[in-house]
Amino acid sequence: MTTTKACVFDVFGTLVDWRTSVTREASAFFKAKGVTGVDALEFAVAWRKLYQPSMDEVRSGRRPWTILDELHRESLLKLLERYGIHGLSETEIDDLNRAWHRLDPWPDVVEGLTRLKRKLIIAPCSNGNIALMVNMAKRAGLPWDTILGAEVARAYKPTPEAYLRSAEALGLQPEQCLMVAAHPGDLKAAARCGLRTAYVPRPLEHGPGRGADEPDTAQPFDVVAGDFVELAERLEC
Amino acid sequence: MTTTKACVFDVFGTLVDWRTSVTREASAFFKAKGVTGVDALEFAVAWRKLYQPSMDEVRSGRRPWTILDELHRESLLKLLERYGIHGLSETEIDDLNRAWHRLDPWPDVVEGLTRLKRKLIIAPCSNGNIALMVNMAKRAGLPWDTILGAEVARAYKPTPEAYLRSAEALGLQPEQCLMVAAHPGDLKAAARCGLRTAYVPRPLEHGPGRGADEPDTAQPFDVVAGDFVELAERLEC
Repeated sequence: MTTTKACVFDVFGTLVDWRTSVTREASAFFKAKGVTGVDALEFAVAWRKLYQPSMDEVRSGRRPWTILDELHRESLLKLLERYGIHGLSETEIDDLNRAWHRLDPWPDVVEGLTRLKRKLIIAPCSNGNIALMVNMAKRAGLPWDTILGAEVARAYKPTPEAYLRSAEALGLQPEQCLMVAAHPGDLKAAARCGLRTAYVPRPLEHGPGRGADEPDTAQPFDVVAGDFVELAERLEC
Repeated sequence: MTTTKACVFDVFGTLVDWRTSVTREASAFFKAKGVTGVDALEFAVAWRKLYQPSMDEVRSGRRPWTILDELHRESLLKLLERYGIHGLSETEIDDLNRAWHRLDPWPDVVEGLTRLKRKLIIAPCSNGNIALMVNMAKRAGLPWDTILGAEVARAYKPTPEAYLRSAEALGLQPEQCLMVAAHPGDLKAAARCGLRTAYVPRPLEHGPGRGADEPDTAQPFDVVAGDFVELAERLEC
């Protein structure tokens, strides 16, 4: 078997708890601005619901390459309209939009990444843009070797270029890279590009009692781990 | 004055001692392969001399975007021919080519970067490709937040895109970025793009007694520092 040289990671959901963090950010923002009658959790979930459709415009070629910060901001403008929140300045909207730069990692992530980094190259392979990933990492202490993913590839996952360009940027063959994600669809797309796969289910991504995204039984993974510390152990890091 | 949010760095010469390191790598390689009668220092300097002409082909548009590892390899093939070194395998040539991934930093670099990273985003803005920068950083302990520069911009310095795209990838205005280099020409090009500049002379880059690359007297820098620790102090990090 080819030796794994790099681990590349999905981020939203796999590494960070976007649901709780965006809810917290929206709640604090609404309080500070005197916005009442809007449920922050509902707002966070509605924002995330616009995520895939906004990227589909780029994936399909209907619009040119656009970074996620900009797609998030367009989705936010739609939501502010829908919830009747008016009178915010551009700076205030930018600040709320950067809620996605201030997401908390799951509790095992920093320890797991720190251990993995000793022996392997570690980088996000996320749809988030470079600034988003850098700001998130600095706040949360994520010890990336570099930022890879959609902006470097100018393609959104699960488009093959997003995975292939990440391996290529590291000077590696796809099979020397292990894609780590809580989402079976992401891993299936990575596997189709020749990357190895590690499934780390995150049962709390969609809230208590909802369960993790489950793979279909036909889908094999190279590694399955309960969290990032177990993943580091499995990879002997 | 706009607050500096990020420091972006020239690498070859400013951060690492390419001359001594490539000489060491070539010397060890020649010894291992039984190559005699070639002066490793002369070989290293000759290799570096082909660096700017090789990038000029890309800068001028005469050839499409090509990463530095590939340009270095083409230059290496020319040198092997010139010095009459024959019979190496592709793998052996690749290994020698990756000498540029194994460069030692100047002694103040790791401490300086570690301090700067506490308050600022730090990233290379080098002509080296991502894999080269990542492998160098892991070996030398350079604590980058991410890798920026030529490969992300698909443009070689001093082409403006190399600097502008680095700022843009961080979601910053050019004037929020401080370009750090030992080479006045690099800083002049960065300043023309609106970046702030820090000059850190490296008197040993070209060997003992040769002196640092000197600015023309008309060129002002925002910061001048003797090394990276002094730079961190000047930036209150």
